[in-house]
Amino acid sequence: MLSQQEIKKIRQLKQKKYREEQGLFIAEGPKIVNELLHSGFRPRSVYSVEKMDCPVLKLISGNDLERISTLTTPNKVLGVFEMKTSKGKWNGKGLALALDDLRDPGNLGAIIRIADWFGITNVFCSETCVDVYNPKVVQATMGSIARVEVNYVALRYFLPEVKAASKGLKIYGAVMNGKNIYREKLAAEGIVLIGNEARGISDELLAHVGNKITIPRLGKAESLNAAAAAAIICSEFRRSACRL
Amino acid sequence: MLSQQEIKKIRQLKQKKYREEQGLFIAEGPKIVNELLHSGFRPRSVYSVEKMDCPVLKLISGNDLERISTLTTPNKVLGVFEMKTSKGKWNGKGLALALDDLRDPGNLGAIIRIADWFGITNVFCSETCVDVYNPKVVQATMGSIARVEVNYVALRYFLPEVKAASKGLKIYGAVMNGKNIYREKLAAEGIVLIGNEARGISDELLAHVGNKITIPRLGKAESLNAAAAAAIICSEFRRSACRL
Repeated sequence: MLSQQEIKKIRQLKQKKYREEQGLFIAEGPKIVNELLHSGFRPRSVYSVEKMDCPVLKLISGNDLERISTLTTPNKVLGVFEMKTSKGKWNGKGLALALDDLRDPGNLGAIIRIADWFGITNVFCSETCVDVYNPKVVQATMGSIARVEVNYVALRYFLPEVKAASKGLKIYGAVMNGKNIYREKLAAEGIVLIGNEARGISDELLAHVGNKITIPRLGKAESLNAAAAAAIICSEFRRSACRL
Repeated sequence: MLSQQEIKKIRQLKQKKYREEQGLFIAEGPKIVNELLHSGFRPRSVYSVEKMDCPVLKLISGNDLERISTLTTPNKVLGVFEMKTSKGKWNGKGLALALDDLRDPGNLGAIIRIADWFGITNVFCSETCVDVYNPKVVQATMGSIARVEVNYVALRYFLPEVKAASKGLKIYGAVMNGKNIYREKLAAEGIVLIGNEARGISDELLAHVGNKITIPRLGKAESLNAAAAAAIICSEFRRSACRL
């Protein structure tokens, strides 16, 4: 049985403040926990209701799992992992995503999963984006957090810096009145900037965007959800540049 | 001030059982409520903390709004609307989506919004899909529920019926081992079937799918989220068939 103290420490990890204090985060469910165990993340403790191949395993009751889980329906195992120190570096090769002030955990998780599907391994978040170690983000990545490097940077400095460092690097931005993405010649390398759910890309960052692109609309929705837009944009970049 | 009885009736609408009993559903926030007011949905009552142009408006306090709201952060107005009777008919023209056992409210809402963006006005849900009048679905549509016709049908009868009725109608299905969607000649008319979040399309329905399509993967994610896949597929159909 878990001690009250241990339960409290784990439950605290729902909050960013305590995640940063302890340097730890939570992932739940056999699939995600196993993916993290086999990636570069170091497990501190893995609490499971059934046996697993893991050196830091603690077998617990279903009751205890309910007490520590962040899910409505707990899923067999909860892992506590050490956060990685963000490197914030990028060699300017390949395609990367940059997210300006993305607030919804489900959106960030979905975008990391989309990036992973399309082989995009670098995602740069503005410092105002939702925390990637937020349990809802971790769960929404479905394990892709193990393969995609997410860094928090001040995009207003980062974008001009990488542009200066990698000559000819293209910075694309998803906007409402840009060029038709289906007809643009999209580069195999560059950064694609996606904006905030309600306000889009801030004017300050828009100044660094050389290529404004838009997904043509046929119907009447005012906008697309940020993750849906990211999915379509990543798909178009890969289709166009990689001749898939 | 709202009576306890009135508050209870509204709060009950979070549950499908009571929505069906009362024939009513909830939508929140000025944007969505206004879109519904200007569409075919009939408002029963609109509770707002500020004045609005609406014949069934009831001005309430922020406190009362908190009591009836389904949102963590209530957003000025909550509308109670009459559900529409599902028609379940389709003339077989244009592009339609069919959803097999889609369970996540956020996914269904996002897919309705994506359909609306791309001018797809018919979505057919299997009877096991999450209820479109679930408050989380309504909110995730961001108002698109006012423009997209969502019908619940037994897809195992519906698909062969529409195929028989519309000669040559193509039924596409999103699967893991189908043909590269980027290289397929996609029709301007037909049905695109999207499967359950975990299990994909059921074998029973797969038997009716003449054209299996797949979004090519470059990275390592095991799958794409259903809404992300729907976004990419709708985008490809519109790009390809409408020469956008």
